[in-house]
Amino acid sequence: MKIFGRVFIVGLLTFFLGLAPNTGKAAEQKSVAEKILEILLDKGEITPQQYQELKEEAQAEHEALIRAEEDDWDVKWKNGLSAESQDGNFSIKLGGRIQIDWASISADDEVEDVLGDDFEGFGTEFRRARLFMSGMIYKVAEYKAQFDFAGDEVTAKDLYLGLTDLPVVGKVRVGHQKEPFSLEELTSSKYITFLERALPNVFSPGRNVGVQFMNSALEKKLFWGAGVFWDTEDGAENFNDFADYNITARVAGTPWYADGGRRLLHLGLGYSHLFRDDEETEFRFRQRPEIHLAQARTVDTGDTDDFDRFYDSGNLLGAEAAVVFGPLSVQGEYIQAMVDSANEDYDFNGAYVYASYFLTGENRPYKNGSFSRVKPNNNFDLQGGLGAWEIAVRWSCLDLNDGGIDGGEETNYTVAVNWYLNPALRVMVNYVYGNVEDREIDGTISDADINSVGGRFAIDF
Amino acid sequence: MKIFGRVFIVGLLTFFLGLAPNTGKAAEQKSVAEKILEILLDKGEITPQQYQELKEEAQAEHEALIRAEEDDWDVKWKNGLSAESQDGNFSIKLGGRIQIDWASISADDEVEDVLGDDFEGFGTEFRRARLFMSGMIYKVAEYKAQFDFAGDEVTAKDLYLGLTDLPVVGKVRVGHQKEPFSLEELTSSKYITFLERALPNVFSPGRNVGVQFMNSALEKKLFWGAGVFWDTEDGAENFNDFADYNITARVAGTPWYADGGRRLLHLGLGYSHLFRDDEETEFRFRQRPEIHLAQARTVDTGDTDDFDRFYDSGNLLGAEAAVVFGPLSVQGEYIQAMVDSANEDYDFNGAYVYASYFLTGENRPYKNGSFSRVKPNNNFDLQGGLGAWEIAVRWSCLDLNDGGIDGGEETNYTVAVNWYLNPALRVMVNYVYGNVEDREIDGTISDADINSVGGRFAIDF
Amino acid sequence: MKIFGRVFIVGLLTFFLGLAPNTGKAAEQKSVAEKILEILLDKGEITPQQYQELKEEAQAEHEALIRAEEDDWDVKWKNGLSAESQDGNFSIKLGGRIQIDWASISADDEVEDVLGDDFEGFGTEFRRARLFMSGMIYKVAEYKAQFDFAGDEVTAKDLYLGLTDLPVVGKVRVGHQKEPFSLEELTSSKYITFLERALPNVFSPGRNVGVQFMNSALEKKLFWGAGVFWDTEDGAENFNDFADYNITARVAGTPWYADGGRRLLHLGLGYSHLFRDDEETEFRFRQRPEIHLAQARTVDTGDTDDFDRFYDSGNLLGAEAAVVFGPLSVQGEYIQAMVDSANEDYDFNGAYVYASYFLTGENRPYKNGSFSRVKPNNNFDLQGGLGAWEIAVRWSCLDLNDGGIDGGEETNYTVAVNWYLNPALRVMVNYVYGNVEDREIDGTISDADINSVGGRFAIDF
Repeated sequence: MKIFGRVFIVGLLTFFLGLAPNTGKAAEQKSVAEKILEILLDKGEITPQQYQELKEEAQAEHEALIRAEEDDWDVKWKNGLSAESQDGNFSIKLGGRIQIDWASISADDEVEDVLGDDFEGFGTEFRRARLFMSGMIYKVAEYKAQFDFAGDEVTAKDLYLGLTDLPVVGKVRVGHQKEPFSLEELTSSKYITFLERALPNVFSPGRNVGVQFMNSALEKKLFWGAGVFWDTEDGAENFNDFADYNITARVAGTPWYADGGRRLLHLGLGYSHLFRDDEETEFRFRQRPEIHLAQARTVDTGDTDDFDRFYDSGNLLGAEAAVVFGPLSVQGEYIQAMVDSANEDYDFNGAYVYASYFLTGENRPYKNGSFSRVKPNNNFDLQGGLGAWEIAVRWSCLDLNDGGIDGGEETNYTVAVNWYLNPALRVMVNYVYGNVEDREIDGTISDADINSVGGRFAIDF
Repeated sequence: MKIFGRVFIVGLLTFFLGLAPNTGKAAEQKSVAEKILEILLDKGEITPQQYQELKEEAQAEHEALIRAEEDDWDVKWKNGLSAESQDGNFSIKLGGRIQIDWASISADDEVEDVLGDDFEGFGTEFRRARLFMSGMIYKVAEYKAQFDFAGDEVTAKDLYLGLTDLPVVGKVRVGHQKEPFSLEELTSSKYITFLERALPNVFSPGRNVGVQFMNSALEKKLFWGAGVFWDTEDGAENFNDFADYNITARVAGTPWYADGGRRLLHLGLGYSHLFRDDEETEFRFRQRPEIHLAQARTVDTGDTDDFDRFYDSGNLLGAEAAVVFGPLSVQGEYIQAMVDSANEDYDFNGAYVYASYFLTGENRPYKNGSFSRVKPNNNFDLQGGLGAWEIAVRWSCLDLNDGGIDGGEETNYTVAVNWYLNPALRVMVNYVYGNVEDREIDGTISDADINSVGGRFAIDF
Repeated sequence: MKIFGRVFIVGLLTFFLGLAPNTGKAAEQKSVAEKILEILLDKGEITPQQYQELKEEAQAEHEALIRAEEDDWDVKWKNGLSAESQDGNFSIKLGGRIQIDWASISADDEVEDVLGDDFEGFGTEFRRARLFMSGMIYKVAEYKAQFDFAGDEVTAKDLYLGLTDLPVVGKVRVGHQKEPFSLEELTSSKYITFLERALPNVFSPGRNVGVQFMNSALEKKLFWGAGVFWDTEDGAENFNDFADYNITARVAGTPWYADGGRRLLHLGLGYSHLFRDDEETEFRFRQRPEIHLAQARTVDTGDTDDFDRFYDSGNLLGAEAAVVFGPLSVQGEYIQAMVDSANEDYDFNGAYVYASYFLTGENRPYKNGSFSRVKPNNNFDLQGGLGAWEIAVRWSCLDLNDGGIDGGEETNYTVAVNWYLNPALRVMVNYVYGNVEDREIDGTISDADINSVGGRFAIDF
């Protein structure tokens, strides 16, 4: 029916735009009103003059209809402002996200020595303040330009162009984009369950400038991505001796997928080989205690000019698993980072497991190999809609001690409550207890206990 | 009639989207053309074959109409690009403002010693160059993300999310927003009468990160806002010992409001209590001579490490009054800042009064407790439209001398001409004569006379 | 017919909005369906009750049509998202561009001494990452706000407001905009044939803050622009002793213009007089080897505090010529910069010539005095569309040696291949051989040979 309507409209358009001046053909394109008028004229129900007048009015109405149809892109809300051309060849999205964080951090007495006077306190910040514009043009090409302006600085986020619907390789994207590694990293910050991704996320390469191919297979039960990425940091640019690039790949899928995603098992594997220049590139891993407002990194392999930190290659290995069983879901990852310098090989690792439960019955939705937007069964309103309520607990650990480097071992326990007022607006509260052991600062090995309460008001549009 | 149409369309939609497969109901949703065809068939005016053909065409036309209606957001100019969903639950605005300033500043001979060699001169700058995106989503939530890019820097301006239409409290907004204090501060820079807000604006807290409630009462004759705000400056973030926050409230209204706002009396009161840490927070007030291109502050309480500048609390008090009497309006404010340090309490204050007159007969429009966009009776065009012409004069003063601090006393006199070509485009010229007395710099008490001419080309979109 | 339809709709609108409550008039505005129903009622084919019911439905349908028509801005793709009001008084465009560059640079052995260790290498960067919003409002006014966010910095690009359709002067624009000088400079970076504009582009003033008038004459065969511009650099602002401004003008046109632009001859002349302060302003010209990723300028007049570099005026002279002959085009420019300091006058110059040929038959399109967007005859798709393919060669030279300044002489030869997948997406590859002679660094005169291969993935939207 829709196709018929579209064909019909195209025919009418063709007619009225004068592309089909053949009158025989045009006659077939008369509006129903005109045809009824013809019949009434034939039957003598109306006079020729009446017919003439009414025919012109009918044509004007019909033109108005065509005009209303023809120019229109479909403009609508699709988790952001979306506009699509009726032929489906062009689309555009505009939007952004605002995340306002607050946190209160306290620690045991020794922490001042380790992490500084200012580690304890209360504060607020914009965790993210982004705008983006993305779209599809000429059917085959896509682009996204997304910038973060939080902290009154510009940071390029997704900033790429690409081709879609290619045979075998699916999509190819060139530009600044996330490397295909780690389920939690690939789940948007709009959708992650806790305020911050877990401790092992420190190993994930995140966004870099590169070329990536990505596709799905087995009727969207298998997803893969692979690419080569330059290790660009500040300003998404670099220039050196053709070193510092990563080859990264990930394969993930749902061996079990039922009830339209209400119940599923996700498994995934990621691997990245880091090519480096052992005369110029030093490695450093360091992480905050799962609260971004923390003014110091609680574990840190350090940045001294120690010879051994120069490295000529590295390997990242990640294993992912997640189960969704209606409102209950469990997710975990293990990530290992192996770094090869001239004299020493280092091996660091981390892991996390968490469980989430929706008191209001929703489930965490899964899409294209990662988790997606939660849509409350009832949006919050003043007529009794409560939104969606989720509770979650997480255990995570990170070990940055190896081969003489005493970056510290951290173990965190988090309890979280999330209130989704509607698909776009979320209020989050996390309590994080963190324990740091065997971290060396200035020659002294220290421990620390950290208690944090943090929250976020988040909207995306 | 509109409601009827909407109900009708919703019915049709329901039908065509297959959400109401019940044929009995669907039969009621036939288009008028179809029904006429049925009648003609019944009466034998058309054959069953004619009926069948025409019915299909009528359905296609009807679908085209529904499609044209259903997808459509209302896209229009509403002092910026505005798009609203037809159900009124979603809306979005996109826009910005560009303000290009120039100024020529001269001063008497002694000024070089006081304010530096480079104080006199001519220059140009972008006073503001902003883009924003704002909207309402899911009926209950609102957001605004506005950034200023003038001077090739990013500065967060309005950056908040909120809930609307709440009982009693009206709106609640969380994020970076103006504290509810001072009529002139709360009047957008798009609408202020002079190039710069008057000298006492230095005391106004401006934008900070906080939580604010705001509502109107007495049929929009009374407006109030109240909130708690963290004293964030660079990057809209802070982290410290739970100090440096303000509790700020304002109540304002129009005891007299006639002729749809052509004539009114506005009165308002603002109060802010500043909680501070007397070991970490110093106060400093300093102000330019109502010309932003001035390369030095003409009055300044200083930023030396003098013990007395640390303070543990402060109080701001503001009184506002304005009268609109058709094209004539008069507006004034008095602001007092009381600062309590350990050994000394300081008391600073400022005031201004100005009068504005529209030669072309418009009046300054009032909206929600502050002044709003001037709309010329005739927009400027090449067929004789002149736009709106406004002349205005202002007296303002600021006293930053108290308790041994010799920040200076400044008195300014300004004459202004504003040309509003249309509601969005304005050309402004100001002449400011400023007199500074009793300002101490490097141990010497000095005076200065300053003459400035400045202008602005401003558009908002 | 279109006009008739529009008049008709306006009439209907007037009716339904209740602006024409006169029933006699309103009766004329009934929809065709209503009139048919009246006839059927008259003829006794339907009952009064049937008539009443159907009439209401017909009115509802009609209202839906009007609503679909009335609110609509024309939203469409016009090399970016474009929305225009139906009365033509308002329009808005939203878009941006992403250009991802890579380059590999090598040089002969002596270069390390001259240009530093890090001159050779491989790298990637975002050459441009821009967003813009532009539009026309209230028919007479225009604006554009365009910012570049590449390298995680904000840079104001086009940032102006203006009036259009003025008698004689055509347009006037106030703000940050390109000075009218040099064909290649005025051709957007979206449309230039090579990765970078040629070496002599170093003399072009580029964008500054000023006031410009621009118009066309002789049925768009002649274009001129002229203005005064302040020499603003960082942050598009300055403040000094009323010095550092340029008066710049250009006249260009097509004495021969045939086949709708498939064949044409372009000639142009540009001139700029630089007013400067010989006690405060130094001049400096320096240029990269037509590869932006190059980490050093290969020619440079230097920035030492040498007295002679202060200058009180300068003159720029540019001559342009271009021929388009179907797929083949040839373009060249000569630019001379004459700088007058107190003791010495300097004279620098540069020139380039290039030829471009479209293997796929397109031609370089010409618009308003510069070159514009290439539209492939067949866009790239998976059904055999190849896009447009262009090859080009360029010779360029730049002489920065005069009056004792040994900035160097550079001559570059470039071979380029461009693949336009569609009007918005382009892949570019350039090979540049550069030869630098007589450049002094630290007292030594040196030469250098540089080989670069660079590429770009570019999209604009």
